[in-house]
Amino acid sequence: MKTYLDCYPCLLRQALDAAQMAGADERQRKAVLDHVLGLLRQVEPSSTPPEIGDQVHRIVRREVGDGDPYRVVKESSTGEALALYSELKALLVEADDPLEVAIRLSIAGNIIDFGPAREYDLWDVVERVLVQPFATDDRAAFREALARADQVLYLADNAGEAVFDRLLIEILDVPVVYAVKGGPILNDATVEDALAAGVDHVAKIISTGSDAPGTILDLCSEKFHRLYEEAELVIAKGQANYETLSEEGTKVFFLLQIKCPAIARDVGVPVGSVVLKQG
Amino acid sequence: MKTYLDCYPCLLRQALDAAQMAGADERQRKAVLDHVLGLLRQVEPSSTPPEIGDQVHRIVRREVGDGDPYRVVKESSTGEALALYSELKALLVEADDPLEVAIRLSIAGNIIDFGPAREYDLWDVVERVLVQPFATDDRAAFREALARADQVLYLADNAGEAVFDRLLIEILDVPVVYAVKGGPILNDATVEDALAAGVDHVAKIISTGSDAPGTILDLCSEKFHRLYEEAELVIAKGQANYETLSEEGTKVFFLLQIKCPAIARDVGVPVGSVVLKQG
Repeated sequence: MKTYLDCYPCLLRQALDAAQMAGADERQRKAVLDHVLGLLRQVEPSSTPPEIGDQVHRIVRREVGDGDPYRVVKESSTGEALALYSELKALLVEADDPLEVAIRLSIAGNIIDFGPAREYDLWDVVERVLVQPFATDDRAAFREALARADQVLYLADNAGEAVFDRLLIEILDVPVVYAVKGGPILNDATVEDALAAGVDHVAKIISTGSDAPGTILDLCSEKFHRLYEEAELVIAKGQANYETLSEEGTKVFFLLQIKCPAIARDVGVPVGSVVLKQG
Repeated sequence: MKTYLDCYPCLLRQALDAAQMAGADERQRKAVLDHVLGLLRQVEPSSTPPEIGDQVHRIVRREVGDGDPYRVVKESSTGEALALYSELKALLVEADDPLEVAIRLSIAGNIIDFGPAREYDLWDVVERVLVQPFATDDRAAFREALARADQVLYLADNAGEAVFDRLLIEILDVPVVYAVKGGPILNDATVEDALAAGVDHVAKIISTGSDAPGTILDLCSEKFHRLYEEAELVIAKGQANYETLSEEGTKVFFLLQIKCPAIARDVGVPVGSVVLKQG
């Protein structure tokens, strides 16, 4: 997905938020602001938003320091999702169409977003997404692709969401490779977060080798890149994976909730939509 | 009020929104974006947000053209407020304490904001503000100042809101000078909008001589400046007047609703608050 002009104010806001989350003082936040203003003037117009976001977060790390500022938020998201695990599992056991319910649960988990400001109740979201009509609905093609595939490459999004992914993976009949970030970035799942969610019980966990938002293939390890190229079916969770892989062709299926007006415009659906979209 | 770092992304967003409202094409919006990014890097850190906003809107006018892009929005706001006039007037007639109700109505009218996206029902806002406790409450000092004053200088904010201001002015016992913008800026009231609201029946309408947001005294006409200096009591409506005049001393009373987190932080109250604050 291209970067829309309306993404620029949002990238600037994200930079200030990330700096604050990383514990920056006012002088450091001002330095981040100045550098990001300079970056945004020079940015390659064909970049995707996560490609710019990656550079933004490099500035934040340089000015404020490396680390994992979302560690506590991530652990709390995972704990909250795990607390729902038995109830969610029961929904699957009782379902007439477990795959349908598991797809919806995986998308429900995508509500988990970065930042300390909580504006949702996780169980309310589950109940909404279980019945909400799909704004983009490639479920039939997805079922066909699943039936044909010998293996699935599953691109993770946030910590906590990984618990919901695990529920989907548990009912798939094919081996799954679950790819997480190579280092901390926002509240995205790393190996540590996938392990905490118990994904290792149902899938092989690998790192993309990159700590950029989404999946920027040029920044991923050679090993991941090869795996990606060889994959027959890719499940890509969340907005940043859509932003970075939307032009990657029909083997990629995007499962997400639409939280941002620019992505809504790109997909052609309203903010708040539930989407299963073939690339 | 100083410009907080969190104001910068918001100013950038406002620039893109204003350009769009003025009918800019994608190339013009990109030019606005680039110029505003440059402006934000060089801006004087002691500027108030409306001082930067004034420069932002100069860029928009230069790149997209002069005019009054909010004309239709303003006329519609005024029409909507006038449609409520009789009901609002009845509230005042029936009130035990008409001044109290008129103050609240004037603050209720401050919900009218720029942009076509309507996220409120005007009558719902009236009902809320009629009973909502004041987060900052200098009503007693305001009543005393009103009782002492021989004349009031009333600084207008938005079109439509002017109808609510008129209701307050109608029950004041002192002559009022109602100061509006010298030219179109966002949906701020100009002479035309004040006339459409019927303010000329109850006050002398004058122009500040400036089309900057808020009241930037250095940009106002000499005539207005003199009037301001001589005023014993100033009623300043809305956020931008607070941002530009918050350091101007005790003769200024700010009547507003808090819609922005930076102003909320500066005043020390939550977003959504109803405020009557002595400077």
